[in-house]
Amino acid sequence: MDYLQSLQCKTPAEGRQLAFTLARKSIAAIQTDPEVRNNLRLEYAKDTAQLIASSQVVAIEFQTIAMANNYWRDEE
Amino acid sequence: MDYLQSLQCKTPAEGRQLAFTLARKSIAAIQTDPEVRNNLRLEYAKDTAQLIASSQVVAIEFQTIAMANNYWRDEE
Amino acid sequence: MDYLQSLQCKTPAEGRQLAFTLARKSIAAIQTDPEVRNNLRLEYAKDTAQLIASSQVVAIEFQTIAMANNYWRDEE
Amino acid sequence: MDYLQSLQCKTPAEGRQLAFTLARKSIAAIQTDPEVRNNLRLEYAKDTAQLIASSQVVAIEFQTIAMANNYWRDEE
Amino acid sequence: MDYLQSLQCKTPAEGRQLAFTLARKSIAAIQTDPEVRNNLRLEYAKDTAQLIASSQVVAIEFQTIAMANNYWRDEE
Amino acid sequence: MDYLQSLQCKTPAEGRQLAFTLARKSIAAIQTDPEVRNNLRLEYAKDTAQLIASSQVVAIEFQTIAMANNYWRDEE
Repeated sequence: MDYLQSLQCKTPAEGRQLAFTLARKSIAAIQTDPEVRNNLRLEYAKDTAQLIASSQVVAIEFQTIAMANNYWRDEE
Repeated sequence: MDYLQSLQCKTPAEGRQLAFTLARKSIAAIQTDPEVRNNLRLEYAKDTAQLIASSQVVAIEFQTIAMANNYWRDEE
Repeated sequence: MDYLQSLQCKTPAEGRQLAFTLARKSIAAIQTDPEVRNNLRLEYAKDTAQLIASSQVVAIEFQTIAMANNYWRDEE
Repeated sequence: MDYLQSLQCKTPAEGRQLAFTLARKSIAAIQTDPEVRNNLRLEYAKDTAQLIASSQVVAIEFQTIAMANNYWRDEE
Repeated sequence: MDYLQSLQCKTPAEGRQLAFTLARKSIAAIQTDPEVRNNLRLEYAKDTAQLIASSQVVAIEFQTIAMANNYWRDEE
Repeated sequence: MDYLQSLQCKTPAEGRQLAFTLARKSIAAIQTDPEVRNNLRLEYAKDTAQLIASSQVVAIEFQTIAMANNYWRDEE
């Protein structure tokens, strides 16, 4: 699990990237066949209901990461 | 990721705008073709279930931003 | 964004009203045509799945507002 | 909004009751016709997907109320 | 509401059990006929979408209970 | 409930593993027949909507675990 050595991120943008990664890796952990995932991705990227559901997962992961970084308040 | 330099926003209204931006950019990060996104947008803006789901994503993003700004209590 | 000058509300009931407003305004921000919104509203108010989904958005918005007001504990 | 004078509840059970009330009143605030609501209720009480969605709304409302009451830790 | 005398649980496992109980009792509070519930249960236990939705309710209830118990940190 | 002796995890990666375990065990607690579960799993691993819903459950469970471990800040 190389992508999750730490929840500490230098910037909000880096935190956002980690949120995307966590969301994507959850899918990969359940559907382990990369070819099947690629086919599924083509489909759901055209389905707004699923795009919205995906963005909700990203929002939840990002909330956790933002908490972990004290919302990057100290960077100000 | 120019839209996410900081979670600090001067006012609740500015925070709300950032919440909308984050939600919209999540969709754009998954469906990267702007023309496809425009077509999808026309559809889902007429579908209440998807409008409600979108507003839920905004609510979660806003919660994170509100926490980050200590709920703008100091502005009072 | 006149409806969101502050997250501070005098009472829980006022906070609840703000939660409803935020949820409704999110929809309006995505579907900007008021006539389309009115038609959609007539439909979804008869669809329990969507009523429940809407009430979930209100619950999340209210949680944020309640946090912002320290749960109105000082009013006791 | 007589049902929401305060988030303070004497016991967890009383807090749970308030969570049910809040969830129910959200529905009533959107679908204001009591007869329509009664008909809808008969339907969705037989639909597990909607029962589960309703119980999720209750869970979120209860989380807010539990936070407001400091989880009733002092009662122990 | 005998099952909710307190949110305090001795162990994380006990807290998890309470989360399952809360989720189940929410359903029972809305669909009050035990026979109807039994029939519904047989159906939804074969429907993965509903199993996943149920597990989300458990996750939210457990988060509240874990907060209430300070995540059982003191047990370590 | 051997998999939940504690919410304390040495690393974020270990915490993520626990989040997957909790999500999976919730399903197993509702659908207790392992053969039925295996069949269901084959189906939903090909259904993106359900993969996304599953990843949301993992995100919520992980948020609780991350809070419990103070986001592994002290490991830095």
